[in-house]
Amino acid sequence: MRLHVALSPAEFAGLGLSGRTAVVVDVMRATTTVVAACAAGCRRVIPVADAAAARAHLRASGLPPGETLLAGERGGDPIAGFDLGNSPLEYTPERVRGRTLLLTTTNGTAAMLAARGAAATAVAALTNVDAVARWVRAHGRDATVLCAGAQGGFSLEDAVCAGILVERIVAGARRDGRSVEVSDAAVAARRLGAHYAGRLGLLLEDSTWARTLARAGRAADLAACLALSTVDEVPVFDDGAIVPGRVTSRADGL
Amino acid sequence: MRLHVALSPAEFAGLGLSGRTAVVVDVMRATTTVVAACAAGCRRVIPVADAAAARAHLRASGLPPGETLLAGERGGDPIAGFDLGNSPLEYTPERVRGRTLLLTTTNGTAAMLAARGAAATAVAALTNVDAVARWVRAHGRDATVLCAGAQGGFSLEDAVCAGILVERIVAGARRDGRSVEVSDAAVAARRLGAHYAGRLGLLLEDSTWARTLARAGRAADLAACLALSTVDEVPVFDDGAIVPGRVTSRADGL
Repeated sequence: MRLHVALSPAEFAGLGLSGRTAVVVDVMRATTTVVAACAAGCRRVIPVADAAAARAHLRASGLPPGETLLAGERGGDPIAGFDLGNSPLEYTPERVRGRTLLLTTTNGTAAMLAARGAAATAVAALTNVDAVARWVRAHGRDATVLCAGAQGGFSLEDAVCAGILVERIVAGARRDGRSVEVSDAAVAARRLGAHYAGRLGLLLEDSTWARTLARAGRAADLAACLALSTVDEVPVFDDGAIVPGRVTSRADGL
Repeated sequence: MRLHVALSPAEFAGLGLSGRTAVVVDVMRATTTVVAACAAGCRRVIPVADAAAARAHLRASGLPPGETLLAGERGGDPIAGFDLGNSPLEYTPERVRGRTLLLTTTNGTAAMLAARGAAATAVAALTNVDAVARWVRAHGRDATVLCAGAQGGFSLEDAVCAGILVERIVAGARRDGRSVEVSDAAVAARRLGAHYAGRLGLLLEDSTWARTLARAGRAADLAACLALSTVDEVPVFDDGAIVPGRVTSRADGL
């Protein structure tokens, strides 16, 4: 198995994802939020490019009001008229169970849309990193982790999450007696993951976006995003939407 | 002072270098070779996009044969009809002193050409990293390090070199009582630099390109590229060419 990490969204255009497993990471906060929404029993999350696309999709769907919710942020702030922002803490069973979410975020949904060409795609955050590592190993294909980053560039927390994921995949594959070949970017991410895994609180100082969210009064969100392997949920892509992993996992025999 | 590292050439197009100091890194082997050429007393190195551009430039220059040399590689191999390859060991005073080199390499010259919009640009390798750190601090401007990478993507050794450079700049600035703001990518590079700085030999195992060069019988080149701060030379850009830094350093009062 070969593992690669796209450390920056600037690299997405050149990724050949055909036949590979893809994993999308946007720790603060889009993928942490999707994991929370799926763990809370939403029906599905549909990533869309922007607020206008979300509203157009809602109008075209003909779904009854209340069954589909508009969700997301721009620049970290809620979007006027939307039902939900981008705090994972908002995505409770009371708010989202059984519902479809149309989600648009500054960096995360672009990464989700970029991953559509892969053979199978999962959504990872620090909160479900062990579950995603098992999912990647079970699929057995070469895998690429797409770091959503910030404003088109590198973000530390996404690289750290990708690196912890790489470490877990490599460790598990070794236990299975399988070899794993890691790209330079996966080696680098793994090294960053090893440094921060036991002290995720350091990211509150070292990550630019963590400092920005803290200044915006989002300390509770940061605590929710920096929790390691607290849920077994693996959201997966199914025909353009992200669905809770339990369904697809069963179909895949995992 | 603000420091940023472009970890992948995919990010070059989005860099705003105007008014900033830029540093180009391609450890294996283009920038190590340029540092060696300048330390050996070449007149200048002109980076060009490809072999055809090098030959066209030579014809157009009207310079007497022998005064200008064609240099570089494609895919790690020498180019037919060129005077020099891309091994830093070839760039001895006997071969290059006083001469103009037209250089084209797979990744390095693209990074050199991408850095042309900066206020001042230097060429860095592991071999001159302390000298470049002093040069960046003396200029005092915000700085961006461009990692040439491999085939449009991330390469470990360039990120490590960039990270050691960031560490040296930050440490020096602190001694001067100046504050330095580092981007997420610079934090990550610095962390990688801290891991590898005292054990550069690990890159022979961890870097994909190092393994490729070793298989191609380039162990002596690798040893030359993985030597830390062995020269004080800082090659700098001057009107589209790279010139030995001593001249420009004096002009800049460094």
